[in-house]
Amino acid sequence: MGVDLVGTISDLRILVGRRRSAGPVGFVPTMGALHAGHASLITRARRDCATVVVSVFVNPIQFDRPEDLERYPRSLNADVALCGTLGADIVFAPSVDEMYPVPLECAVSVGRLADHLCGRSRPGHFSSVATVVLKLLQIVQPGAAYFGEKDAQQLAIVRRLVSDFNLPVTIVGVPTVREPDGLALSSRNQRLDTAERQLAPALYRALRQVKNALAAGIVDAAELKRRGAAEVPADARLKLDYLEIVDPDNFQPVERVLGPVVAAGALFVGATRLIDNVRCSPGEP
Amino acid sequence: MGVDLVGTISDLRILVGRRRSAGPVGFVPTMGALHAGHASLITRARRDCATVVVSVFVNPIQFDRPEDLERYPRSLNADVALCGTLGADIVFAPSVDEMYPVPLECAVSVGRLADHLCGRSRPGHFSSVATVVLKLLQIVQPGAAYFGEKDAQQLAIVRRLVSDFNLPVTIVGVPTVREPDGLALSSRNQRLDTAERQLAPALYRALRQVKNALAAGIVDAAELKRRGAAEVPADARLKLDYLEIVDPDNFQPVERVLGPVVAAGALFVGATRLIDNVRCSPGEP
Repeated sequence: MGVDLVGTISDLRILVGRRRSAGPVGFVPTMGALHAGHASLITRARRDCATVVVSVFVNPIQFDRPEDLERYPRSLNADVALCGTLGADIVFAPSVDEMYPVPLECAVSVGRLADHLCGRSRPGHFSSVATVVLKLLQIVQPGAAYFGEKDAQQLAIVRRLVSDFNLPVTIVGVPTVREPDGLALSSRNQRLDTAERQLAPALYRALRQVKNALAAGIVDAAELKRRGAAEVPADARLKLDYLEIVDPDNFQPVERVLGPVVAAGALFVGATRLIDNVRCSPGEP
Repeated sequence: MGVDLVGTISDLRILVGRRRSAGPVGFVPTMGALHAGHASLITRARRDCATVVVSVFVNPIQFDRPEDLERYPRSLNADVALCGTLGADIVFAPSVDEMYPVPLECAVSVGRLADHLCGRSRPGHFSSVATVVLKLLQIVQPGAAYFGEKDAQQLAIVRRLVSDFNLPVTIVGVPTVREPDGLALSSRNQRLDTAERQLAPALYRALRQVKNALAAGIVDAAELKRRGAAEVPADARLKLDYLEIVDPDNFQPVERVLGPVVAAGALFVGATRLIDNVRCSPGEP
C-alpha cells in the first residue's frame, strides 16, 4: 500500500473521495519537519479513523517575519517516509500557488481570542492561521482534525473557528510531547545550536514554576509571573517574549487565579522563538 | 410527502444526511418573504438536485439600520407553503439564538470587493453576509447553492468566498425576475405604498438608460452615470444612493467602459432602499 503523496487539491479530493465510504477521515495539518509531536497526532488519527490525511504546508501568510519563513525547516521526503511508517494514507503537500493562486479577497478575522499572547507579538498571525485551517478543512473535509496542545492559543482559535462557522468536523487536542529535559517538541528546535538547546528548557521550567507556585497557594498573577520569569537565566541569548496567565476559554489574562488557567510563554532562544504552555489550577499539584 | 420544516441545526443535519445518498443536495438561502424571484431559484434547484433545502433566516448582523431589520417582512407560514408547492424538500428556519448562540469570535472579512456600491453605503454588511453564508453552507453542506443575480455584488462576494476558502460547493447565479414595468422583485417591494410602487421602476429605467447609452457608443462612465441618473424623477420620495459602473469581476468602478461591466444602483424610495443591476457591454444592444 504505502502512503500517497499528492500536490493538488483536485487529486487530493479524488483520493479522499474514493476512501470516504470506508469510514471516518482523520486529518493532521502540519507545516512539515515532522517530529515525535506530529507522530503522536498521526498515531491518534490512525487509531480513530479509517483514512488518515496529513498535510505538509508551510503557510506563508502566517509568518510575520520573512526570515522566520525562510528559515523554517523543510524535509518533505523524510516527512513522507515518517507518515508511511506511522500508517498515514495520504500526504497532501500543495505548493503556495496551489493554495493561493490569487491574493485572497476573503479571510477569517479573529476577535479577542487573538488579542493577547502570540496574537499581540505577531499581529495578523492567527487570522492567517484560521484562514489556512479553514481552507484545508474544506479541501480535505475530514470528520476529525488533530491539533497539538503545545499551540494552545491556536487550538482554542481553531475550536472557535469550528463552532462559530458550524464546520462539520470534530477538533481533537493532543497532549504536548516533550524531550526528557522538558523542552516541548517543535520543528523550530532544529534551529537551536548546542548551547541554545541547553538553554531552551528554561521556558518549560518557568511554566512549571508558575504551576508549582499556584499549587502552593499563590493566586496573584503578577507574583506568579514574577516567579516564573525568575526561572529564565540572565543570558544574552534568552529573551522572554511573554509569560502570561490566561483564562483557558477566552485567552484573556487574569489578575487573580480563581480556577483553571493556562500559563503560556514565548521565549526567544537566540533567533528562534519557542512557545509552550501548561494548564494549571489553584492548589492542584 | 410535503415539505419538512426544521428549526435546529442538528435536526437539519439529520434530515439532509438521510437524503444525501439519493443524489446532489441543492440549497437556496433566503431571508424569507418569498416571491417569484425566490421561486425561480427553488425551481432551478429542484430541476438540478435530488434534495432541495431552502433556508429562511433574517440575518440580524447584516443589517446596518435597526429600523430596516425591524421592518423586514416576515411570512414563514406562506414561505413554507410556497416551498411545498415548488417541490422543495426541507425548509430550515433557525432562530437567531440557534445561529448565534454566543457572539462570534471569528468572522469573514471581505477586501476590495466590498469597498464600493452597497459596501460603501453599508459598512460591514458584506462581511456579515459572507459570514452567514459560510455558516449556512457548512450546516447544509450542499453540492450547489443558488443566488439571485439581482444581488450582484453579494453574488460576486459569495463566489470569491467559495474560491478563496475552497468550499466544496458550486455557486449558481439565477437571472433577476422583474415585474412587467421592470421593477426587480424584492421582499422590500412589499413595503412600498401605492405611490412609491409607481416611482420604484425609475431605478431599472436608469440602469437601462446606461445600457442604451453604452450601446450607442458612449463609454465615459461619468457621462453614462449622468444619463442614467437623469431617469430618476425629481421627487422628494426618491434619493439615488449610488449609480455606478463597475468591473464585473472585482466590482471596482471604471472610468471608461472598454468591455463587459455591471451598471448597479441603489435607490431610496421613501424609507425603502431598493437595489438593481444590469450587465452591459460597449455597443451591445
